[in-house]
Amino acid sequence: MQNINKVCVVGAGAIGSLFVGHLASLVETTVLTRRESHARELNEDGLRISGKSQLNATVRASTNPAELGDVDLIILATKATAVAASAEGLQGHFPNAKLLLVQNGLGCEEAVRQFGDWPLISGVTFMSGVKHSDTHVEYELDTATWMGPWAEHGAPFEFVTELEALINRSGLKAEAYEDLLPHQWSKLIFNSAVNSIGAITNLPHIKAFAERNEISDLGHLVFDMMAEGKHIAEARGVIIAGDPWKMNVQAVNHGQSGDDEYGHITSMLDDVRNRRLTEVDWITGSIVREAHKAGIPAPYHETMYRLVKAHETSWKRKS
Amino acid sequence: MQNINKVCVVGAGAIGSLFVGHLASLVETTVLTRRESHARELNEDGLRISGKSQLNATVRASTNPAELGDVDLIILATKATAVAASAEGLQGHFPNAKLLLVQNGLGCEEAVRQFGDWPLISGVTFMSGVKHSDTHVEYELDTATWMGPWAEHGAPFEFVTELEALINRSGLKAEAYEDLLPHQWSKLIFNSAVNSIGAITNLPHIKAFAERNEISDLGHLVFDMMAEGKHIAEARGVIIAGDPWKMNVQAVNHGQSGDDEYGHITSMLDDVRNRRLTEVDWITGSIVREAHKAGIPAPYHETMYRLVKAHETSWKRKS
Repeated sequence: MQNINKVCVVGAGAIGSLFVGHLASLVETTVLTRRESHARELNEDGLRISGKSQLNATVRASTNPAELGDVDLIILATKATAVAASAEGLQGHFPNAKLLLVQNGLGCEEAVRQFGDWPLISGVTFMSGVKHSDTHVEYELDTATWMGPWAEHGAPFEFVTELEALINRSGLKAEAYEDLLPHQWSKLIFNSAVNSIGAITNLPHIKAFAERNEISDLGHLVFDMMAEGKHIAEARGVIIAGDPWKMNVQAVNHGQSGDDEYGHITSMLDDVRNRRLTEVDWITGSIVREAHKAGIPAPYHETMYRLVKAHETSWKRKS
Repeated sequence: MQNINKVCVVGAGAIGSLFVGHLASLVETTVLTRRESHARELNEDGLRISGKSQLNATVRASTNPAELGDVDLIILATKATAVAASAEGLQGHFPNAKLLLVQNGLGCEEAVRQFGDWPLISGVTFMSGVKHSDTHVEYELDTATWMGPWAEHGAPFEFVTELEALINRSGLKAEAYEDLLPHQWSKLIFNSAVNSIGAITNLPHIKAFAERNEISDLGHLVFDMMAEGKHIAEARGVIIAGDPWKMNVQAVNHGQSGDDEYGHITSMLDDVRNRRLTEVDWITGSIVREAHKAGIPAPYHETMYRLVKAHETSWKRKS
């Protein structure tokens, strides 16, 4: 018996659109957008995926959840900064749905829980896309989305494995875990260092992030900050699944050899360059809060958290 | 008997020009510039000081020290980044002169010592000026320059007190100390935090630097970094003269009350905004090196040092 026949994706940015474009070929897929014009364009033109997949999806989109009927699964794909507002908009709707979260960082489950009783699936996504327009997204990095039942009020693991299979059949990649925390924390520690340091130095994720020769080399900071993150995870009882430092070294050596100019522009750097509020409260800030709960020091995370927050305030000043 | 009758100021930026404009009224003052056009303009038009002083000085300027005759005192007033090159240019000249250094940070004495036998006077200046043109500088902050004989190869303290009196008679302010280190370190620790944090957040020295209410507040970082600096000074046997945190609180409350927009643009922030290499190696970097000599950790200073250095490298990248 198939439990997942109708899906509503909330938020049609790059990640949300990738879910919509792929899942629409297998199940009835609707889209809840923030802007009326975005919903209208999707209804008229459908959604085109290029890059790693070539797809044209016919979708039903609206800014009003009441117009989208009931669904079995909500995929909440807005940025962490918008999760609380999005969940508030869903209040009273989709009463029979489970809800998958795919934001960076920690703390979004609690925000959603305030507005509804949906059993939750925590998720961490490594895929990436480039949004060329409201109706065209390029599928860039075809890496997996990890997911698992939220410990406090989670969907049954069988539901999560069905979702895993559905996503994999759709052309995206998913991995289900009964305990996502060790995986979530690996990515969190990685993201916290790479995103905050990139945002503050205006550097994409380049080889300098793994260099530890000179005393002034940036790799020392990345290494020390990740070591601190691992220590905080342990103090919170989490043995992380993968070594963030190895992920860092692998990622920066991924570019063409000898091409020092190549480097992934992290989401936080992209936010900073476009003067959008970053997700630092959910990423680096969440690790700071976990350290305080555990009663242990977190100088690197506190420093980077405060620098990014202060940098955000600089945009409000007159030049 | 007066020992200081002829002075050569090396480097006619804002600080150098303030010395030239004021001392020229009391003693024969020459200027060594980097650019021919700068020397020519000074010879033709003289130097005008506005702001806290109103002066018009007739000066002799050249790019060649051999053209300036012998002097009793050299004031080396270039940025820390240019000290080694400037001292190299002085090699073999002014054999009877003492030499006053007024750069930010530590380590310039050693650089000068490589190129000549001049007895050295270490200095720390708190005055500031705005250079409107090659021949016009506005005297802005009329705070003192502190000076004292360098411990390793210093000018006699009597010479330093004569210089102190001369500077004070000229309309600038000076204070002489037999042991400058406790004063130098106070300013160094203050500068290291305020300059590096300002440069990396794009914030002038505003009230946020003293705020410590929310967990994300920047004042926590300033406070922790200064505490670390004091600890490193102690480990190197220096009891600092003034509390950098109090200097910080006083400085940000100096602006007009209720005017959150006011804030001094530190030299490092000015450098970063104009994509000039900063003095971070001599300021924050020098504290990192002192911590390593003492064998104690310096996570805040290491972090800020590496972030500023990495930010500098970001300018070299194609956008």
